[in-house]
Amino acid sequence: MTERIGHVEKWLQTNNLAFAFISEPKNVFYFTKFMCEPHERLLGLFIFPEVEPFLVCPKMEAGQAKAAGWCHEIIGYQDHEDPWELIHRVMKDKEFSGKQKAAIESATLPYQKALSLQKFNDRLMFEPIDAFLGSLRTIKDEQELTTLKKAAELADYAVSVGVNAIKKGRTEQAIIAEIEYELTKRGYPEMAFDTMVLAGENSAAPHGNPGKRQIKEGDFVLFDLGVVVDGYCSDITRTVCYKHASDEQAEIYDTVLQAETEAIKASRAGLRIGDLDRIARNIITDKGYGDYFPHRLGHGLGLGAHEAPSMSENNDDVLKTGMVYTIEPGIYVPDVGGVRIEDDVYLSEQGPVTLTNYPKTLQIIP
Amino acid sequence: MTERIGHVEKWLQTNNLAFAFISEPKNVFYFTKFMCEPHERLLGLFIFPEVEPFLVCPKMEAGQAKAAGWCHEIIGYQDHEDPWELIHRVMKDKEFSGKQKAAIESATLPYQKALSLQKFNDRLMFEPIDAFLGSLRTIKDEQELTTLKKAAELADYAVSVGVNAIKKGRTEQAIIAEIEYELTKRGYPEMAFDTMVLAGENSAAPHGNPGKRQIKEGDFVLFDLGVVVDGYCSDITRTVCYKHASDEQAEIYDTVLQAETEAIKASRAGLRIGDLDRIARNIITDKGYGDYFPHRLGHGLGLGAHEAPSMSENNDDVLKTGMVYTIEPGIYVPDVGGVRIEDDVYLSEQGPVTLTNYPKTLQIIP
Repeated sequence: MTERIGHVEKWLQTNNLAFAFISEPKNVFYFTKFMCEPHERLLGLFIFPEVEPFLVCPKMEAGQAKAAGWCHEIIGYQDHEDPWELIHRVMKDKEFSGKQKAAIESATLPYQKALSLQKFNDRLMFEPIDAFLGSLRTIKDEQELTTLKKAAELADYAVSVGVNAIKKGRTEQAIIAEIEYELTKRGYPEMAFDTMVLAGENSAAPHGNPGKRQIKEGDFVLFDLGVVVDGYCSDITRTVCYKHASDEQAEIYDTVLQAETEAIKASRAGLRIGDLDRIARNIITDKGYGDYFPHRLGHGLGLGAHEAPSMSENNDDVLKTGMVYTIEPGIYVPDVGGVRIEDDVYLSEQGPVTLTNYPKTLQIIP
Repeated sequence: MTERIGHVEKWLQTNNLAFAFISEPKNVFYFTKFMCEPHERLLGLFIFPEVEPFLVCPKMEAGQAKAAGWCHEIIGYQDHEDPWELIHRVMKDKEFSGKQKAAIESATLPYQKALSLQKFNDRLMFEPIDAFLGSLRTIKDEQELTTLKKAAELADYAVSVGVNAIKKGRTEQAIIAEIEYELTKRGYPEMAFDTMVLAGENSAAPHGNPGKRQIKEGDFVLFDLGVVVDGYCSDITRTVCYKHASDEQAEIYDTVLQAETEAIKASRAGLRIGDLDRIARNIITDKGYGDYFPHRLGHGLGLGAHEAPSMSENNDDVLKTGMVYTIEPGIYVPDVGGVRIEDDVYLSEQGPVTLTNYPKTLQIIP
């Protein structure tokens, strides 16, 4: 944690900023190992270029922050106290050497909280820290990787539960119920996002809403789901066929599978991310399905189910060792159905390693 | 919807404001019937004191907004477009007669979006609309009431599933799995908040974390859960005993039940909300448990699982016909366990009506 805070301190020095205020719960967790969803109450971490950071949280949570390993100052407040007043008391002793700019999470910090920061100094201006934090979080350490592996194993398990639950006449919703029931029983009640099971023509909507559509012979059945373990998310997609697959279905499947496996194989440190999207997209376009692949290749994965980097055509950043991201090309043909295949990939020093490992050859469910 | 927007238009006139920008998805739904969770993309509703409102949303969602009944202008943007530029084009034709203040959801609108609004006019200042919107939402119309009733019926059903799932040695987590499985199968996969099943000493923490604690003879088992129906939330708490109840447990239960039923009965339009809290609190204090009731009496309920009004001692607002709120006193005695009983109450012209109706006499599960 000290190392992570050190990166922010250095960035504040380089950018001549007075302090950083970090309050998005996942970012606070990233720096403190303390997971707290304070709802309307205030949670925040103040980091300075030269002096020790401090944490602000409800007093009843302070014990948990310490238990999580936070060893710097904590400003705990009770419900009848104004936390900003307590913060003000601490802040007025700090030496800012005339620095008039502070870093905030500009894309998520509510306007009211930014105003509260200006109470210390009404000439205070703000600099966004979002992109810097996003890029810090892209590189996973060993402990994060271990947790992501566990989350990915559970995603594999969840798909196997879903595939086993496929039966003629069963609804998408009923299959979701089976999947989440088994995970909750195992002690993993939190999904990374709404579990998606889409059958037949519904699978042709990249972000469809599962409902009462029943499984029919000849359906594609698409599973897109993720499991949260200790705050970290997995994200897997698999598509199977029920009873039989037409030639067109088999061709679509093989094309997506080729695009997916080639993009995983091509992953290497230093490669422009937009070029990786291009590798998968070219395979799909060459087979004539280019217009049916309307989304980016993937996204970073970690505390967020979607985080940096965005694996999209126009991303000029490069892949780095330690990144974890999804590769998830898809082809969606209206009325015929859709196929998406998605794995979570860790870019190790030896090259790409898939964390999700549920089989990918086309399964025809009998 | 037109009526709801009319209230905002009038409020803008009264407060001499140029426009209101509303972007919290539940608030947007309240005015448009269009439920959209745009994640990093922009969703927003512009309301003006004199002219027609317009909605901004991703282009691919515009059809759904219309289908939901939105009949005013829609600015739909594609991923490669900057929605703020499109907004700017529309805004520059509006006549603001020198008004320099706009209303925003100050507690939730990210700082960056407030800055984007200032692009139209760098002298623009902001006025919070949060409290006004909160108070508008407290009064439920008939359609909202019908939906809330349905959500409450499902909460009753969920408790019955949970109570039937109580078995010696079964964990809290396993019982949650049963409850959510049955609801998902019925087509209601969304809970209003993390379902809570707390057994024995765990029930003594008002906001405990359910886990692997197994049911034992003599346990209190506390259920706190809610179901989402068409965006609207229910919220129920029931506490039962497994196998037998001690005299102390029975006394705690009876005290909470009396406090709860008396507070429901006392509900009437015009009553100071803090006084309602006081009615329940006095009953509990008179029995010597005052220190073990550490939270407010309840909260408003609707699109939010927690919304205005806050049913707390220091709330000087009064109850109004049409409000829906929870009444949920509790007593939590460390090591002995906790009891909370919670109902959703609608204040009709004829007086209070409970929407949740699962039985409240002390159940000893055999």
